[in-house]
Amino acid sequence: MDNKLMLMIPGPTPIPEQVLLAMAKHPMGHRSGEFSAIMAEVTENLKWLHQTQNDVLILASSGTGAMEAGIINFLSQGDKVLVGNNGKFGERWGKVARAFGLDTQEITAEWGKPLNPDDFKAALEADTEKQIKAVIITHSETSTGVLNDLETINSYVKAHGALIIVDAVTSLGACSVPVDEWGLDVVASGSQKGYMIPPGLAFVSVSAKAWQAYETATLPKFYLDLGPYRKNAAKNTTPFTPPINLFFALQAALQMMKKEGLEAIFARHDRQKRATRDAMKALNLPLYGGDDCASPAITAVMPQGVDAEKIRSVMKKQFDIALAGGQDHLKGQIFRVGHLGFVCDRDILTAVAALEATLAHLGYGDFTPGAGVAAAGKTLLA
Amino acid sequence: MDNKLMLMIPGPTPIPEQVLLAMAKHPMGHRSGEFSAIMAEVTENLKWLHQTQNDVLILASSGTGAMEAGIINFLSQGDKVLVGNNGKFGERWGKVARAFGLDTQEITAEWGKPLNPDDFKAALEADTEKQIKAVIITHSETSTGVLNDLETINSYVKAHGALIIVDAVTSLGACSVPVDEWGLDVVASGSQKGYMIPPGLAFVSVSAKAWQAYETATLPKFYLDLGPYRKNAAKNTTPFTPPINLFFALQAALQMMKKEGLEAIFARHDRQKRATRDAMKALNLPLYGGDDCASPAITAVMPQGVDAEKIRSVMKKQFDIALAGGQDHLKGQIFRVGHLGFVCDRDILTAVAALEATLAHLGYGDFTPGAGVAAAGKTLLA
Repeated sequence: MDNKLMLMIPGPTPIPEQVLLAMAKHPMGHRSGEFSAIMAEVTENLKWLHQTQNDVLILASSGTGAMEAGIINFLSQGDKVLVGNNGKFGERWGKVARAFGLDTQEITAEWGKPLNPDDFKAALEADTEKQIKAVIITHSETSTGVLNDLETINSYVKAHGALIIVDAVTSLGACSVPVDEWGLDVVASGSQKGYMIPPGLAFVSVSAKAWQAYETATLPKFYLDLGPYRKNAAKNTTPFTPPINLFFALQAALQMMKKEGLEAIFARHDRQKRATRDAMKALNLPLYGGDDCASPAITAVMPQGVDAEKIRSVMKKQFDIALAGGQDHLKGQIFRVGHLGFVCDRDILTAVAALEATLAHLGYGDFTPGAGVAAAGKTLLA
Repeated sequence: MDNKLMLMIPGPTPIPEQVLLAMAKHPMGHRSGEFSAIMAEVTENLKWLHQTQNDVLILASSGTGAMEAGIINFLSQGDKVLVGNNGKFGERWGKVARAFGLDTQEITAEWGKPLNPDDFKAALEADTEKQIKAVIITHSETSTGVLNDLETINSYVKAHGALIIVDAVTSLGACSVPVDEWGLDVVASGSQKGYMIPPGLAFVSVSAKAWQAYETATLPKFYLDLGPYRKNAAKNTTPFTPPINLFFALQAALQMMKKEGLEAIFARHDRQKRATRDAMKALNLPLYGGDDCASPAITAVMPQGVDAEKIRSVMKKQFDIALAGGQDHLKGQIFRVGHLGFVCDRDILTAVAALEATLAHLGYGDFTPGAGVAAAGKTLLA
């Protein structure tokens, strides 16, 4: 059916009506008092969401653009960096680092497993000459649904003194990323995730320590040079023409988030994550990744005895529910359920009910009809 | 008055209702057949607008991002480039080139004057050892309303063999930029201009010759690396999450443009440009820049005996018409009237009528009331 799609993927995520309508307003000039007022408001609310007094800068790019900015602004060719890689996005940040000539050492874990903080501890403690300039880490690994232990890894980075550069694309707005409390230097995120707005904006928070590194960093940059963004943001403007209608959307979405409150937002994501996982367990569908490292944004499932792509196909064609598939070697092996952003408890129950009907249709016999809905309902109402 | 703003600036430009409403639709997954169908349609229509069979790639960035991509993808550190500079944007491309370590020779003209094609001819003919790898030129210089003679300059570039990299941000969709006929290698543009959609998307067309240069170009890049955009576009997808709702807008706007037709679009911009200029002459307001190099997108005016900023202020406060001011040393010296994108003849007449009322209110006596409207009307109806 047209226009009835229910997005249960890890981005783009569903958009509230008032955000869609805000976006449909006529644009205004970006060098106007009206736009500056919006810029001031969204910047303040972004700091609230990031739990920080650091600069939070807004780029017209995807999350990858923001993450690249977060890397290239604070480093110089040949600088040594540690990159955590346990999924498609960790892998990508290694590629960015190498594309810019950084001396890249990867700390890896198998896809579906979290990075081991001890590996970072060992590498950082071994670096007595302080050659490592930055540690680059993905908080919520979207490709696998694994949440890395950023807090512990960061404690080792702090002890060492390197910068920490964080991909928080699917964690910011889904669980607490207390930038100031943890002392996170650079944190990148994207609009089509916890922010509840369409793709096209990305965000980078930058600490005073990172700005110090910026002063001597020499990697070439212009569009993604954060210096002019900072200078302009101080005057409530942007160096280049901003995606104005997406700013309208951002303004509306952040107002909604402030109304809901940080604690309520994080509790909702946590509850829906647990309900989704409990439903999968009740349906005897193996989870890909353990409960102790489960992303608040996405749950990956590796079904046995029933084809993941067939599940996705029936869910889409019959029930207009979009689930994500696996990436790279996980293609066809897993499906991923997004519970990120503008998702209510009803959506989880709906997705589980449709999944049950789909499994039965595909001849998967290893579950009791109703068990998934019952489990999800119990957790949601606990 | 709220929400009655009439944008007469060179971007963002006014947006048609069906484009605004298209943008307010719920997003879809970008790895879906539905999105690929949109990607295929808009890519085909972009080629139509560019009058080319070359690749036309779509980025999530401002026009500056597209222009940076157009430069860094085809060059290596130390490469010599010629940059035309007769305004703020020409100046900016020189900055980009230097930021990436290119050996940059500027060919300048005074702001308000066009670049002299003979200067390019001389520089290119003197380069018998073919050290110049690319010529970077702004077609319509938005800061001054001057249209550079791209066709003639390009003929000298062709004779030499260097790549030509064109900022067509405020010319594409306003006047003919026949990419294949002229053999333009790289052409960058942005959505908030002739495209009639809000800012946030940018476009780069790339010739086969430029792709050859890409193979050996070594400037570091990742988010703006056009190779993956090309590879993905061939499969009707994008390397990174695209601003989906802006794609909905692009789809709707290109459908409107195809319906109007290229010749009609260009004739409309030309007529409105001439009407605007004729009105200014009739009001004894000196034009900044000559008729022989007038941009189809924007007319710059340098009033004498009346303050440009006061004119802008009354136009905005009383009549809800946004005009652009001057940039850099032209701040306070000129005002700029945009006639770009979704502008109808009525808009020109409206702006001129409001300008007459404003001039009278500010005590500017050097015009006959009604002369501007009469002149504009005559040209529009000729």
